[in-house]
Amino acid sequence: MVGIGPGHLSDMSPRAREALLAAEVVVGYDTYLELVRELLAEKEVIGTGMMREIERCQAAVDQALAGKRVAVVSSGDPGIYGMAGLVLELALKAPVDVRPAVDIIPGISAVGAAAALLGAPLMHDFAVISLSDLLTPWEVIRKRTEMAAAGDFVIALYNPKSTRRVSQIEEVREIILRHRPAATPVGIVHHASRPKEKMVLSTLADFTKEFIDMFSLVIIGNSQTYIKDGRMITPRGYRL
Amino acid sequence: MVGIGPGHLSDMSPRAREALLAAEVVVGYDTYLELVRELLAEKEVIGTGMMREIERCQAAVDQALAGKRVAVVSSGDPGIYGMAGLVLELALKAPVDVRPAVDIIPGISAVGAAAALLGAPLMHDFAVISLSDLLTPWEVIRKRTEMAAAGDFVIALYNPKSTRRVSQIEEVREIILRHRPAATPVGIVHHASRPKEKMVLSTLADFTKEFIDMFSLVIIGNSQTYIKDGRMITPRGYRL
Repeated sequence: MVGIGPGHLSDMSPRAREALLAAEVVVGYDTYLELVRELLAEKEVIGTGMMREIERCQAAVDQALAGKRVAVVSSGDPGIYGMAGLVLELALKAPVDVRPAVDIIPGISAVGAAAALLGAPLMHDFAVISLSDLLTPWEVIRKRTEMAAAGDFVIALYNPKSTRRVSQIEEVREIILRHRPAATPVGIVHHASRPKEKMVLSTLADFTKEFIDMFSLVIIGNSQTYIKDGRMITPRGYRL
Repeated sequence: MVGIGPGHLSDMSPRAREALLAAEVVVGYDTYLELVRELLAEKEVIGTGMMREIERCQAAVDQALAGKRVAVVSSGDPGIYGMAGLVLELALKAPVDVRPAVDIIPGISAVGAAAALLGAPLMHDFAVISLSDLLTPWEVIRKRTEMAAAGDFVIALYNPKSTRRVSQIEEVREIILRHRPAATPVGIVHHASRPKEKMVLSTLADFTKEFIDMFSLVIIGNSQTYIKDGRMITPRGYRL
């Protein structure tokens, strides 16, 4: 499991690079494989946007069971909403005597890359929530949002919105507005560390009017977060 | 602000490495400077374990105001309980016309490195909480723990315990036990990506009997987390 980081090769660790170079087979979502294309020469590449996650990870495990050295590519950190769990689960289904060894190589996470662009919004306790309800009941996601808001966590949202799923982000906004002022800073980051990188600063009242899609990362400040000179900062509490 | 990652140079991004090499002055806590010592030849190094965070970051800002290219070293990700916020706050105190530019270079976070060692515990929504009450009232930390437990978040604890502060981790255990079974998996990681790296798997009932200190990272599973073959996994919800 190779975490390639948020996008640009300069954000990928040497350990991840070496693992990719050492692999005989590289498996991943097409978009992520494209980011590391220059490292894939003369390798067998299994990548398709069509194939579902389970099939892709099973293909990787099957290659490992066949004796191949396989790298499964995940953007950001494979351990944060990435493929690490699925690959481990599938590998652990194999009988003990043939079970392939799985090493997980962490990467710079999407939330870390987004925070760095915005300033320093994650200086204090934070909660990370995915708004995708494909695998998680919406009730669970809503409850978590409610608890994170009540606990005054900085809140980072993965998969905030898709073409199909547009109402959830509005509901999240309403839940958090019951706990925090309308002026609470919100940062939206698109494609951190990639050519189309962009960030927008807004407020809890207004942020859903901005462009947000599946590739956006949204960070909602806590009660202490402020914006100064275009930087979003959650103070740790030092007396300055 | 340079995130050097959890420890080993092979976990530091090329972008962070280049920023360190390009700096005239490097500022940081002695322990972290030691991790990147081979990159510091012929640079002015301001590092002391004695100096407090504010003095150290102010020294960095002062050097920048004097026209120097300064790198402030943070282990893990400087944007997660690191020095990014403090440096930004201090830099923003300077008058606009002389204010130094601050770039934040993210790193592989301590929590990401710990999760990778344990398996895949962060595959679902998680909350990150520091138990250090030096800058945060204990009541706030306790409330956050309560909310994170009630929301069934995977919970990652930074600064879980020190020689002076031993009761808080017990209180956290009791709070979470009111929401989750005693057998809930807990992973403890020491010095991820460093020579003394070590991990221990335990349960919510028993984990505080294990060795834990300021350099440990504790990850407490949610209601779905399990351990198999020595790996801690929070399933995303795929039907396998």
